[in-house]
Amino acid sequence: MNFMKYPIHLTKVIEVLKKLPGVGRKSAERFAFEMLEWSQDSLNEMAETISLIPSKLNPCTHCGCLMDLKHCFFCDDSNRNATLCIIASPKDAFAIEATGEYKGLYHVLGGVLSPMEGFGPEKLNIEKLETRIKSLSITEIVVALDSTLEGDATSLYLKQELAPLNVQISRLAFGLPMGSSLDYVDGGTLARAFSGRGQF
Amino acid sequence: MNFMKYPIHLTKVIEVLKKLPGVGRKSAERFAFEMLEWSQDSLNEMAETISLIPSKLNPCTHCGCLMDLKHCFFCDDSNRNATLCIIASPKDAFAIEATGEYKGLYHVLGGVLSPMEGFGPEKLNIEKLETRIKSLSITEIVVALDSTLEGDATSLYLKQELAPLNVQISRLAFGLPMGSSLDYVDGGTLARAFSGRGQF
Repeated sequence: MNFMKYPIHLTKVIEVLKKLPGVGRKSAERFAFEMLEWSQDSLNEMAETISLIPSKLNPCTHCGCLMDLKHCFFCDDSNRNATLCIIASPKDAFAIEATGEYKGLYHVLGGVLSPMEGFGPEKLNIEKLETRIKSLSITEIVVALDSTLEGDATSLYLKQELAPLNVQISRLAFGLPMGSSLDYVDGGTLARAFSGRGQF
Repeated sequence: MNFMKYPIHLTKVIEVLKKLPGVGRKSAERFAFEMLEWSQDSLNEMAETISLIPSKLNPCTHCGCLMDLKHCFFCDDSNRNATLCIIASPKDAFAIEATGEYKGLYHVLGGVLSPMEGFGPEKLNIEKLETRIKSLSITEIVVALDSTLEGDATSLYLKQELAPLNVQISRLAFGLPMGSSLDYVDGGTLARAFSGRGQF
């Protein structure tokens, strides 16, 4: 096959678009060719919006959640109760808020333990976590991490680290996802649903 | 459900990313949250690359294909033969070049006839097409448009319009795609494969 080279800048557009998560060569090419049709104004709007991300979207210095114009949705809201939900990244707060089940505060760890990727306990935002638990008189901690190997390890690590503080610490329940059929649920999920079975 | 609002700029990032083809809310959110982790340099590189598209990627004033630094891969190549391939958009040229089957010139129409979208014959780049056919002493025209209703209509329209020029005009063959199983080929494709059957 005798592949024709794309113009230099088109190749560059494709390369930068390929950095987006889940975007491969084919999708990046599709985006790039579509963008060839856009006006300079539309392109500039996208460019400016992208480059302003770090200056317009800052994490709260207390909880690590995203702030809107120096205003933290949680830390600056006196109606939140003295529960602390530990999450891996700021976006998890949006998913939890959408359930309407939780009215407490958050604490962003910044990741989960992953020795394979060189992400050890020293990279988790734990020191400030302990300070906050004390200063905010937190009564309950909910660990809301992924149900993966890394999430499990990090949850156990937190349980050990926070044990001396004598605060009730729980973790999100594991079991069947809503609407799931037993036929299609994997063995691990089913086993955890069994061991966590309850009266109804 | 009590949905929490995203910070203003995050909403804006999601909105601009949703303009990319095939990107819905979920993908745009995924892109946006990933970009929160990027460095200012990476974001600036993407922003600059995007806003430079119109100045760095221009269509050839003759054939409409994309140029690389004012150099047209086709019009500026004296080794191309006197065949003219009519395509809807510049990206089609890359797909055809990749086959290695074609060594002629191209002409970008800029779209296909689509009365529903208000895209009539006056928007097709036809006047210049006729001029080029004469001035380049084109001996054969290959219409390489989609096998859709719009592609069919545009091909027939071109055949009529170009008839007075007395140049051989053909269209890409229709039939079974390579590697396809008859079980899974749609009726329309099978019907065209039948009517176009040939000796082998």
